Amino acid sequence: MPDYDYIRDGDAIYERSFAIIRSEADLSRFAEDEADLAVRMVHACGLVEAARQFEFAPGFVSAARTALQAGAPILCDAFMVAHGITRARLPANNEVICTLREAETPVIAKEIGNTRSAAALRLWIDRMAGSVVAIGNAPTALFYLLELLRDGAPKPAAIIGMPVGFVGAAESKDALAEHSYGVPYAIVRGRLGGSAMTAAAVNSLARPGL
Amino acid sequence: MPDYDYIRDGDAIYERSFAIIRSEADLSRFAEDEADLAVRMVHACGLVEAARQFEFAPGFVSAARTALQAGAPILCDAFMVAHGITRARLPANNEVICTLREAETPVIAKEIGNTRSAAALRLWIDRMAGSVVAIGNAPTALFYLLELLRDGAPKPAAIIGMPVGFVGAAESKDALAEHSYGVPYAIVRGRLGGSAMTAAAVNSLARPGL
Repeated sequence: MPDYDYIRDGDAIYERSFAIIRSEADLSRFAEDEADLAVRMVHACGLVEAARQFEFAPGFVSAARTALQAGAPILCDAFMVAHGITRARLPANNEVICTLREAETPVIAKEIGNTRSAAALRLWIDRMAGSVVAIGNAPTALFYLLELLRDGAPKPAAIIGMPVGFVGAAESKDALAEHSYGVPYAIVRGRLGGSAMTAAAVNSLARPGL
Repeated sequence: MPDYDYIRDGDAIYERSFAIIRSEADLSRFAEDEADLAVRMVHACGLVEAARQFEFAPGFVSAARTALQAGAPILCDAFMVAHGITRARLPANNEVICTLREAETPVIAKEIGNTRSAAALRLWIDRMAGSVVAIGNAPTALFYLLELLRDGAPKPAAIIGMPVGFVGAAESKDALAEHSYGVPYAIVRGRLGGSAMTAAAVNSLARPGL
């Protein structure tokens, strides 16, 4: 067998990937800073058509960037989201928090009659003011976030709401877009989303460029 | 605001999700055990159309299941893959290994003129015989795996080859399908793939059912 023919340089792969996405995806309805974010999100899922389902509330990108630069913690619903965040890109050595496996979480889940993914958010409350929330897995977590905000929980600076799947994912993102309690948000309408896209969004907001 | 209307029971969400996928996705070309795997992979990406791009080599499911039951380690190219694997599902407390951040990895990357994702595989060699390989992120890792096998590296029991993206992803999976050095494989043709789908495949193979 001869050598396989492929690009072996990481930066070159990124550059070429982003160029392909910009040439194929319709990003015309996005502002420049939103387009940068959209490119990374498409990169994470391998599907240029996904860009049609992206929706960024006015002021979302600047709110998230400002919060991260000021040292906001990043509150993640899943360890896959947390582990997709490139620590070296974070502007203020920001904390990346996932409370899914805390000892209290299953106890709270029983108490509130919801999933562990939702229950884990109860352990965010003290950190939620000014945070960047990154929900990339569980629709129940996004719904429960809205219930906490409705009941007066401290407001995050920005919400990345991108749970994936067939039950509640589309509905939870629609609910966020319909009433986000004044917090700027980014969503992917419909079933698409996921931890990779969510982590990619955080990575893009954390630092412009490659 | 009234309460949001959504299913709050984890098992019920899974059951409903899998039922929706079975009703919408065309799984007719798969054997029963392959269809179970396909359902979980679709679940991870939120896109029933993705099933068209799934390809399982003959004997893949049974080879992977047998290896996992016998205690095979799971070799992952990315931490997101490793963190998507549900430890409680593993049949033999199998090791989940990702060598991306070992101290030697960047050194090897320079030496071989390849990405760190590829270089990390050099640290798999001692564990590769009979392992289950799970590549869900980097095309360079899959290409480099093929180069290692070509050069006589010990053979895994099964290869999950599902890197995602725009540069090399489709090509690396085509190369695996064209010549897998006798190792049964699972791939997603084209650009789709990713850590969530790859971890979902491992989780499905680790234990049948919900």
